[in-house]
Amino acid sequence: ARPRVGYFYTGKTRNELLTHNIKKMKVSEHFSVPVVVNEHVSVYDAITTMFLEDVGTLFVVDEASRLQGVLSRKDLLRASLGQQSLQEVPVHIIMTRMPMIKVCKKDELLIDVANKLIENQIDALPVINEKNDGLEVIGRVTKTNITRAFVELVKED
Amino acid sequence: ARPRVGYFYTGKTRNELLTHNIKKMKVSEHFSVPVVVNEHVSVYDAITTMFLEDVGTLFVVDEASRLQGVLSRKDLLRASLGQQSLQEVPVHIIMTRMPMIKVCKKDELLIDVANKLIENQIDALPVINEKNDGLEVIGRVTKTNITRAFVELVKED
Repeated sequence: ARPRVGYFYTGKTRNELLTHNIKKMKVSEHFSVPVVVNEHVSVYDAITTMFLEDVGTLFVVDEASRLQGVLSRKDLLRASLGQQSLQEVPVHIIMTRMPMIKVCKKDELLIDVANKLIENQIDALPVINEKNDGLEVIGRVTKTNITRAFVELVKED
Repeated sequence: ARPRVGYFYTGKTRNELLTHNIKKMKVSEHFSVPVVVNEHVSVYDAITTMFLEDVGTLFVVDEASRLQGVLSRKDLLRASLGQQSLQEVPVHIIMTRMPMIKVCKKDELLIDVANKLIENQIDALPVINEKNDGLEVIGRVTKTNITRAFVELVKED
């Protein structure tokens, strides 16, 4: 499309125009693949998985693949200060559990997820589908996704 | 100032208008206080400092308070997988060192910092002043600062 230069009518203020574009950004276009581990794996194996998959947050699921917990780098680092061997502690001991977990859905606005991350002081949210027997994890949204979206706002210029 | 509604002439395309606001955001209005440790402290003490100060990145300085290294949660987590006692390993063994460290200055654009974070796959940049004998650390900019700025873009509407 030819860019419209100069006079144009929008009925909007300059700031309304900016937020109009931001409010079009949905989770569905800005989420990453989730990395999950079983609740019985050790803290040691969870840390290893984090490095192999190069992520900062892991989601803990049960045998039916339903969301049970969340593990951040911070959670794993705290565990590493403890006296116990990291090979002996299962992740379900240290994870953040349901129903304390903040989640989001694919059709939510990215700006609302950014707000949840800031308000709850967390790095990532699982993107979920509600099922009869619990929550299915289909993605993750992190501060990296938000930062990348911020950069894209200008690159589209 | 009274918001300008409706027709207005700018000589800019719509997207140029949108990014205009983002390109006014400087590091100076969006950085946080830096947390520094000496290069001789142990990995254990660095992790403890990270929790006490509630930050995800530490800057390592020498006796003259000049930047020597950076420690991320990822660096400390990697160290915790090792065989050695965390009390015995000094942070200068595991830190990212000068001149590998990416830095920024107070008068840089926030969007340029966001770009550096994404391109270099890092969580934070030190804000520095250049001195004759090295770099003085005066702040930090993280993905949290960027996410907060993204949220503020819409709240100012």
